Amino acid sequence: VPAISARALSGIPELRAGDDLAALILAALAELPLDDRSLLAIAHTAVSKVEGAVVELDRVRPSPQALQLARELGKDARAVQVTLDESSEVLRAERGVLICRTRHGFVCANAGVDVSNTGAGDQVIVLPRDPDASARRLRASLRERTGRAPAVLISDTFGRAWRHGQVDVAVGLAGLQPLDDWRGRSDTEGVELKATWLAVADAAAAAADLARRKDSHEPVVLLEGLEEYVSQEDGPGAAALLRPLGEDLFR
Amino acid sequence: VPAISARALSGIPELRAGDDLAALILAALAELPLDDRSLLAIAHTAVSKVEGAVVELDRVRPSPQALQLARELGKDARAVQVTLDESSEVLRAERGVLICRTRHGFVCANAGVDVSNTGAGDQVIVLPRDPDASARRLRASLRERTGRAPAVLISDTFGRAWRHGQVDVAVGLAGLQPLDDWRGRSDTEGVELKATWLAVADAAAAAADLARRKDSHEPVVLLEGLEEYVSQEDGPGAAALLRPLGEDLFR
Repeated sequence: VPAISARALSGIPELRAGDDLAALILAALAELPLDDRSLLAIAHTAVSKVEGAVVELDRVRPSPQALQLARELGKDARAVQVTLDESSEVLRAERGVLICRTRHGFVCANAGVDVSNTGAGDQVIVLPRDPDASARRLRASLRERTGRAPAVLISDTFGRAWRHGQVDVAVGLAGLQPLDDWRGRSDTEGVELKATWLAVADAAAAAADLARRKDSHEPVVLLEGLEEYVSQEDGPGAAALLRPLGEDLFR
Repeated sequence: VPAISARALSGIPELRAGDDLAALILAALAELPLDDRSLLAIAHTAVSKVEGAVVELDRVRPSPQALQLARELGKDARAVQVTLDESSEVLRAERGVLICRTRHGFVCANAGVDVSNTGAGDQVIVLPRDPDASARRLRASLRERTGRAPAVLISDTFGRAWRHGQVDVAVGLAGLQPLDDWRGRSDTEGVELKATWLAVADAAAAAADLARRKDSHEPVVLLEGLEEYVSQEDGPGAAALLRPLGEDLFR
């Protein structure tokens, strides 16, 4: 019986700007199989750190808007300023929650700005500038070194409008089909399927996160069994998962 | 290295009201291991069918409101009436989309009413009346027959406000911790963790759905490797995943 599996890699060290993430992943894989049908799911914080997508809060001058929002929400005004810098639109600012649309188009709390887990003091981690490009570069680097090109998924942890808790979703992608569209197709017995439009990449991100221990540094997860969605081409990336502004019913 | 895995069961037949789902699952498991640490993730349509949570459209009289909405949205007025009957609130009705809060509190398209996949003509499938109770009953039945009590998760496929495509989420649950709360805790190096509040049950539902072939009848998926979240007690159920009305910023 075919199955999918997810396994977190141990041994990825604390990361710094300029670190060679592909080399560190290959070392951490050790004897685990890596092939063209595998998927590596990577927490964006790891990618952001090696790319230097980190902001020193001491160097941030909060604007009047940031100071006002910080007062209302009980947040650090410098972190709010970084959030505003990362945002194209503030959707909600109430009850201590700041929901923004990022420059990339993701809608999430604090525009994806991460106030902890930096491994250092007064720093925040922001999303990579272009997470799809980051995924493609990492994949190219893995291909160059090993001759094999697993798909690469970069994830962030998002809350949900109507449900408690958070799940990982894809913010960057190379080599994985982001969506599987079955709308209008029929099943094996000719019955029309429910309007099914599976967000493959988001489901893979969520599955990968289940395999991570939360109290340890396990940014990278190896997923197997998703070969039907993995391609040699990098494909459209996670940007294809974004609902266009004009279709947003919940601004 | 520990891992999580998801494997769809083959051989579950087309289901009808009154079918013994526990017996059919045990038969489909065949020689696969089922123990107290396993999780069975089941598409709600399977549970709804055996519970008779199916509505014959010929017997539905659409109200003036349903007729009006159906005209505006280009939908079947009888299906819209069933959706309204299942809803406590209509959040959005535009661009062909009807987003409702169900009687249970789930916010989703068409209040979870499924217009296809019934295996019959003019029928729609609705969510089980009390999906947490359905999960507990199924788990009790499995325990009674085998002496083992895997966790049981009942899923539905939901769209997302700001992302294309759909992912499975938990609508019913017995024996699985729905949420894992790490907020305020520290990691292995004493660094405070990002506000992490993992929606375990929703991630498990998404992982399970990845293992299903969409063109075949595979409502049941066996997940292994989630034992840290599985308990003998049935626990609070999927109801614990609902954000209370008073905290909803997107009504």
